[in-house]
Amino acid sequence: MLNKDMTLCISLSARPSNNGTRFHNFLYEELGLNWIYKAFAPTDLGQAIAGVRGLGIRGCAISMPYKEDVIALVDRMDPSATAIDSVNTIVNDDGVLTAYNTDYSAIAQLIERNGLDAAASVLLRGSGGMAKATAAAFRDAGFTRVTIAARNEANGRGLADLYGFGWTADAAGESADIIVNITPIGMAGGAEEHELSFSEEQIAAASVVFDVVALPAETPLVKAGRAAGKTVITGAEVATLQALEQFVLYTGIRPSAEQVRAAEEFMRAQ
Amino acid sequence: MLNKDMTLCISLSARPSNNGTRFHNFLYEELGLNWIYKAFAPTDLGQAIAGVRGLGIRGCAISMPYKEDVIALVDRMDPSATAIDSVNTIVNDDGVLTAYNTDYSAIAQLIERNGLDAAASVLLRGSGGMAKATAAAFRDAGFTRVTIAARNEANGRGLADLYGFGWTADAAGESADIIVNITPIGMAGGAEEHELSFSEEQIAAASVVFDVVALPAETPLVKAGRAAGKTVITGAEVATLQALEQFVLYTGIRPSAEQVRAAEEFMRAQ
Repeated sequence: MLNKDMTLCISLSARPSNNGTRFHNFLYEELGLNWIYKAFAPTDLGQAIAGVRGLGIRGCAISMPYKEDVIALVDRMDPSATAIDSVNTIVNDDGVLTAYNTDYSAIAQLIERNGLDAAASVLLRGSGGMAKATAAAFRDAGFTRVTIAARNEANGRGLADLYGFGWTADAAGESADIIVNITPIGMAGGAEEHELSFSEEQIAAASVVFDVVALPAETPLVKAGRAAGKTVITGAEVATLQALEQFVLYTGIRPSAEQVRAAEEFMRAQ
Repeated sequence: MLNKDMTLCISLSARPSNNGTRFHNFLYEELGLNWIYKAFAPTDLGQAIAGVRGLGIRGCAISMPYKEDVIALVDRMDPSATAIDSVNTIVNDDGVLTAYNTDYSAIAQLIERNGLDAAASVLLRGSGGMAKATAAAFRDAGFTRVTIAARNEANGRGLADLYGFGWTADAAGESADIIVNITPIGMAGGAEEHELSFSEEQIAAASVVFDVVALPAETPLVKAGRAAGKTVITGAEVATLQALEQFVLYTGIRPSAEQVRAAEEFMRAQ
């Protein structure tokens, strides 16, 4: 049962999912924290952020389409957010709002954890907000042999130029040691749900297959990467890790790996 | 477990109690509503009300010290709020905020339900915000033989003049058919916790004893009134009724008397 002393964390998104609500509330309960988490579809971003201040809401996840607009409404930008001019997390310390980007942090951690070699060649397919977070994380991890593959030249070349990377319109014409899908290809419910963003030949030629699509956890690309015996990094790992980093930023507590696995399982069991 | 589609109602108060949180959440669960209620101590009233708009919060209870300041921040005033220039409830209809005062409505209902005779003489002791709600409810129910007893002349006479009532500094010097305590005398934890706001003689001379103090439910005055066989109206009834009216305004649903009793019991079992 709820009580007056509970600390509230929220999310702001045009189309909220239940993921954050389930992940965070599961861990609050698991850790015995008197906290609650609730998703909101705000009617006005400025008023919603005023509400974060005025109501003393501790943490606020920011999703589409507010990740850039919210920059003007916070007090401080963490380097994770300035690295890609995009915010997915706000922490309220007694009225001072600091913005972070835990997608960037999560990708940076996965690059490090999997021991990816900065000398390797990288092919990033996609040019949206998540592609920016991914490109910045590879750049900041010291990678220089990176090509952005995106049909839209303005977006693709713009992103490549931002980080000193190459650009190609034709993803199929390139091969690389590390191939990363940052398009909606393979996403549950999408038009290209059953398709692969890279060819079997590209997968065979790579040593690492990284899919940023989080749902399903086992995308066609992830399955193909596993079948080919490659090092595989999944979008589900990115999603869990970024949510975990939000949890740590809000609460100051790092749950155990076992607790995180249980929360992830609960989040997916919808 | 919480989910993204829950409707949120809140309270704003400098020192929140658990009463509203327990009363409303109990009824949400009892009625199978996908709603939650949480109390807040806002850091800034204007930003908190902006948050009510921006986050699409459905209902908002207003307590001390915000009941007057909030008037400038809403869009519409219901007659219950204009009657006493004081707001304790805001309903958000798609961004349009309407202010109510359910304390006033609750007292008005209790006057009617208990069949109080408008020809009777009334002695109201007190001159704060709740005294204003009480005086207005008696005035609007047609009572004219009303005396406000309050030591502070400016407040007491001001209130009396507002409604065309009499004023006296000395509560002990008056007797009336209906005696109403609207001071903190008898309130749990207060300096005068064990005192009576009216003398045994005043109680004996009255036919109705009304105590607006809600905690404890059985104040010394309520006990004395019951012992003397009088019609007794309690502050606990006012508190439950005003919370119920908030519930109905927010949800559009009127719970059964049995459900309200259960919610009241749960609220008090802290």
